Amino acid sequence: MKLDELGEFGFINTLAPAFEHLAAEGMTGIGDDCAILPMNDHEDLLVTTDLLIEDVHFLREAISPLQLGHKALAVSLSDIAGMGGSPIASFMSIAIPLELDVAYLDEVMDGYRTLSEEYQLPLLGGDTTKSMKAIAINVCVLGKCHKDKVRLRSMALPGDVICVTGCLGDSAGGLQLLLDEIPLNNEHKGLLEKHHQPEPRVKEALFLSSFEGVHAMMDISDGIASDLSHILNASGVSAKVCLEDIPLSDELKSISQKNKWDALGLALGGGEDYELLFTVQKDKLTAVQQEFEERFETPLYPIGGIEEGATEIRWMKESREVRMSNKGFTHFESPDVL
Amino acid sequence: MKLDELGEFGFINTLAPAFEHLAAEGMTGIGDDCAILPMNDHEDLLVTTDLLIEDVHFLREAISPLQLGHKALAVSLSDIAGMGGSPIASFMSIAIPLELDVAYLDEVMDGYRTLSEEYQLPLLGGDTTKSMKAIAINVCVLGKCHKDKVRLRSMALPGDVICVTGCLGDSAGGLQLLLDEIPLNNEHKGLLEKHHQPEPRVKEALFLSSFEGVHAMMDISDGIASDLSHILNASGVSAKVCLEDIPLSDELKSISQKNKWDALGLALGGGEDYELLFTVQKDKLTAVQQEFEERFETPLYPIGGIEEGATEIRWMKESREVRMSNKGFTHFESPDVL
Repeated sequence: MKLDELGEFGFINTLAPAFEHLAAEGMTGIGDDCAILPMNDHEDLLVTTDLLIEDVHFLREAISPLQLGHKALAVSLSDIAGMGGSPIASFMSIAIPLELDVAYLDEVMDGYRTLSEEYQLPLLGGDTTKSMKAIAINVCVLGKCHKDKVRLRSMALPGDVICVTGCLGDSAGGLQLLLDEIPLNNEHKGLLEKHHQPEPRVKEALFLSSFEGVHAMMDISDGIASDLSHILNASGVSAKVCLEDIPLSDELKSISQKNKWDALGLALGGGEDYELLFTVQKDKLTAVQQEFEERFETPLYPIGGIEEGATEIRWMKESREVRMSNKGFTHFESPDVL
Repeated sequence: MKLDELGEFGFINTLAPAFEHLAAEGMTGIGDDCAILPMNDHEDLLVTTDLLIEDVHFLREAISPLQLGHKALAVSLSDIAGMGGSPIASFMSIAIPLELDVAYLDEVMDGYRTLSEEYQLPLLGGDTTKSMKAIAINVCVLGKCHKDKVRLRSMALPGDVICVTGCLGDSAGGLQLLLDEIPLNNEHKGLLEKHHQPEPRVKEALFLSSFEGVHAMMDISDGIASDLSHILNASGVSAKVCLEDIPLSDELKSISQKNKWDALGLALGGGEDYELLFTVQKDKLTAVQQEFEERFETPLYPIGGIEEGATEIRWMKESREVRMSNKGFTHFESPDVL
């Protein structure tokens, strides 16, 4: 069997059981956005690592080196956010083709440092090596979290409202512009920026994890259809999602219409949104919404509810259930909404 | 300027100052084998990360997948050892060409797991992605160390004896066999194994760091000429090394003679030995040597001494000083011994 038959998730899942017996008490690994290790009496250590490969995750001619440095760190910061943690240090390994100009690298590091400074995040180590052809960047971020504030995928409860922190599908739209080789103009700027320079929701997540009524949380990296399934599987619950409530930006709607894209499909299956997906106790929703909007000047978007029962998503449109493949969407396959 | 003009170390060194102001109290980053972060009242957290790239660090047709999995973890474990720490968790990011068979990956993970089990080391996370052509593996290992046991490069003192834990140059010899495309036979097994399946000296390092007289310590990854310079620079001392005392295996000597290699050059500049380099107070040397040999059934090798003065290595041969370029040896350039 080749790797493309097994799939990316398949391989990760095959790893976990073989190492479970080695974990010390209080450690949890593969299954949430970050691993958790006990650090001291009141805090846990969070660890996440992400690998970006040229021509797989980014195109050198499409992303600026500043954006590349930013994004390499942002995707891991987003994982720390997904657990409700604060980042404390980062580590970067980078493999670089030797013909690359040092000025390019300096810009990569400028982008990385600008985002680091926003979170007072030191770069404490890494590895530099040459590569034969492609740039590869692995970033590992350590975070910390008060033990009673850590938010897991397994914490969703029936009756919870499902929310997201921002519009979905813009990043996927930005990628689609590149894949379709559409001539770029000013109108496309927002989608491209969301794809190349995502803002991790660290401060928003810290705020949300301070609310007792906020239960499960994670970041949206693979697309909400796939990511919500992770919460359902971990919590042993099901969900009902109203497709009309999925927040879509005007920009995505307008560009999708022009290019005959399925905007909703991009929002559900596209991935790389790096917004937060969380569930909140119904009677706490209004309070969270109000405080969140006051503090961050952007609304929360309720998109559905958690229910008892088998771990499946029921997709609703005009109050009627519609069918959709629930196996999770590999990057940028349009979901099969009937 | 291109990266190959700046050099690998050059780029790492340019990174450090730009992030120093972001480090919290008690954190140290680039400059030792691991970063150090305060964990709790009595322990520090150690973090190290290493990136292996196909065709740069290994050849897929030369290293078995079992060995590749072992080596990917071993090089980071060796960094934890270099500080006197105990590994507590590992994280692996791997980029894989899609045409690769899953059986190959399973073997990589078998090699990784076998070494993990030796240290009760859980794999707590990672990232799996496809790559266009080359395999890339980044391993990040977390360790812990009692605050008073951490060994730094800056701890060497004049009067200390410089020691290593094993023969040097075997790994470089193994690589040279591959580079020279020498037809392999049983006689070459030891060198190849040292190159493809190095044993990190974690237990040995824990023993050494429990000795008060053991001062500076690090692992030998770039070759002792380069690595010892790191200790001298960090400690502000100089060193005298007796070339006759550099331990060379019979195998390396015999194969070097047959192939007209400079065995000593491989030992000094070859790198990837993953033995420990440390300095010990002179009056504690005998005690450390005896206990070490009793416990590990292999001797320690004193190779010279730390002295006051400018951070240079004086190389001695038959009690006379010989000259050698002291800029550190990039992989496998024969040192210029006059």
